[in-house]
Amino acid sequence: MTAVPPGEPEAGPREGARRRFKTVQWIGDAAGGRLRMIDQTRLPTEFVEIDCEDVESVWWAIKRLSVRGAPAIGVAAAYGAVIGARSRGTADVATVREALRDAAARLATSRPTAVNLFWALDRMRRVADAETAETGGLLLDRLLAEARAIADEDRAMCRAIGRHGAELISKGDGILTHCNAGGLATADYGTALAVIFSAHEQGKSPRVFADETRPLLQGARLTAWELAGQGIDVTLICDSMAAQVMKEGRVQAVVVGADRIAANGDAANKIGTYGVAVLARHHGIPFYVAAPSSTFDLSLADGSGIPIEERDPSEVTEGFGRRTAPEGVGVYNPAFDVTPAGLISGIITERGVVSPVSEKAIRAALGGPPADP
Amino acid sequence: MTAVPPGEPEAGPREGARRRFKTVQWIGDAAGGRLRMIDQTRLPTEFVEIDCEDVESVWWAIKRLSVRGAPAIGVAAAYGAVIGARSRGTADVATVREALRDAAARLATSRPTAVNLFWALDRMRRVADAETAETGGLLLDRLLAEARAIADEDRAMCRAIGRHGAELISKGDGILTHCNAGGLATADYGTALAVIFSAHEQGKSPRVFADETRPLLQGARLTAWELAGQGIDVTLICDSMAAQVMKEGRVQAVVVGADRIAANGDAANKIGTYGVAVLARHHGIPFYVAAPSSTFDLSLADGSGIPIEERDPSEVTEGFGRRTAPEGVGVYNPAFDVTPAGLISGIITERGVVSPVSEKAIRAALGGPPADP
Repeated sequence: MTAVPPGEPEAGPREGARRRFKTVQWIGDAAGGRLRMIDQTRLPTEFVEIDCEDVESVWWAIKRLSVRGAPAIGVAAAYGAVIGARSRGTADVATVREALRDAAARLATSRPTAVNLFWALDRMRRVADAETAETGGLLLDRLLAEARAIADEDRAMCRAIGRHGAELISKGDGILTHCNAGGLATADYGTALAVIFSAHEQGKSPRVFADETRPLLQGARLTAWELAGQGIDVTLICDSMAAQVMKEGRVQAVVVGADRIAANGDAANKIGTYGVAVLARHHGIPFYVAAPSSTFDLSLADGSGIPIEERDPSEVTEGFGRRTAPEGVGVYNPAFDVTPAGLISGIITERGVVSPVSEKAIRAALGGPPADP
Repeated sequence: MTAVPPGEPEAGPREGARRRFKTVQWIGDAAGGRLRMIDQTRLPTEFVEIDCEDVESVWWAIKRLSVRGAPAIGVAAAYGAVIGARSRGTADVATVREALRDAAARLATSRPTAVNLFWALDRMRRVADAETAETGGLLLDRLLAEARAIADEDRAMCRAIGRHGAELISKGDGILTHCNAGGLATADYGTALAVIFSAHEQGKSPRVFADETRPLLQGARLTAWELAGQGIDVTLICDSMAAQVMKEGRVQAVVVGADRIAANGDAANKIGTYGVAVLARHHGIPFYVAAPSSTFDLSLADGSGIPIEERDPSEVTEGFGRRTAPEGVGVYNPAFDVTPAGLISGIITERGVVSPVSEKAIRAALGGPPADP
């Protein structure tokens, strides 16, 4: 735990102050417990938590972005699978196993791009298949333990990413980020934002520029909320202002998250990330992707195989409660884009920083033991 | 006038169909008339016209962007100067002249970046000073005639820009534009959009991508409204999607307007334009600026001398009627950026296309007679 610096308010150590919210958590035991999540669609003006006790409400929470961010979706899906596993009772092991399989199949359809979703559900399925529990109740306990393990590993992953990433940041650096790869996107304090939180803890006083991230404004609603809440210097800008801020010399590094990374390093992330990478290259600014190793999909040779979800036109035409475009106008609303590896200066994982980015370096980083355990 | 193509509805020739709205117009005579403008802040959901009969209401209409776009602001300011000139009666020439001067000084403070504003007001002042009218009433008539001439010249300018610019467009081209440099920004059918309207008339069937243009959404509210209303294929995107659309090979040219162009070709336009220019260069797509010669400010050697207006943070944090960012967060909201001449493939003026862009070529284009009268 980091020592409290002189002059820090007495509210407790920074470590405690930082954990003011829990994005995804399990309340209670396996048989009677429930999944509690912050409804991120209500932020920043309202802090509302929702409790889920059936698979459909978990599916819908993921679909409508109440919970979002690849790692957080993975944790939510794992807990959702536990809820599904008990849905037909726990009379015998086969019933629990079958119910888990059906729940996992359903939850896998909630977001097509987030590889952590599939990864977490596969892991739950593998445990259910391999487990030799004597009763359905014991299997259910084992499944909850696995979901908790996914959440715990996510926390450790966030800390490690923060530690590795902060080494790339110098005192007083301006850091631009896009969308929200923060605590709200994980079970702990994020991936891209973990780098910023770590640098802040180390006294490097980063100055952050947060792209608002249209259409759903995750940067304005979530990233600005998380950073301002921790006393970090954050300036909100529209996506269209990133180039100007770079031109003014106010950005020394770009750090973003990722939803899926191909074997060659091509990285899918929130729409607009690719454009930011092009702008960073033009201005000679390093562009980093921060993501856990679970984000890599080595079955894909490059980014061309990553499916890009298209979302509802109304997010663009009436995204804020009132219509801001003429009726009937054509809209293109891709939710993600793919940044080619060639524009990425480094990929910050819990195992260390992959830089320069190449398939060989990625396979070495993922295959070997953690670089800095 | 263009002939009506087969299959066109019988509502009249295209020329007529296109002129469904008048952005800025004078109603009545000099002594009792008034300035009527579309309140563009109400588009696209409401079509409301506002009538101005005093200088303050014109000042406020410019300030709050009821009228926007450099050429339209110039025309509105010229008519506003007429309104100011008669505000102390027309008992004698000196009174009218003095009132005109005061009105011009006031109107010049409404928008700091639009050079056409100063240009139009200077022109009105010069007429007032040089005019040898025998009575205040005759001077006022002369001033209204000058304001009307500015509007008429603006119409002819739009047509000439459209004609020159359409030569750069091939059949079926995808054209990306940012903000609104259309009929709503001028007294006629625009600058950047004039190129699209002309290409459309020539049967080139342009497919347009309109950046929504945060924070004030002129692309969604105005450009999409204008183009869709004329039956042009327009797809609305968020600003953050421009890079993706380019990467998909769907854009063959970018055409934008400008608020002020320095002697070397550096061009100030709506925030986000510079980023689009960088993206276009990265993708090998030509980037054109369409603007009348009145937009050039040859007193500025380069773009570093162009003042950049910063607007209210609430445009970013609650631009859609409800708050979408946490209270108290820092905001940077520059209204314009400057695209360096080196990123501009050509500047389309009413006198022809300046390409490649250089101070020498600009001075030659502005100094000489129209290239294609």
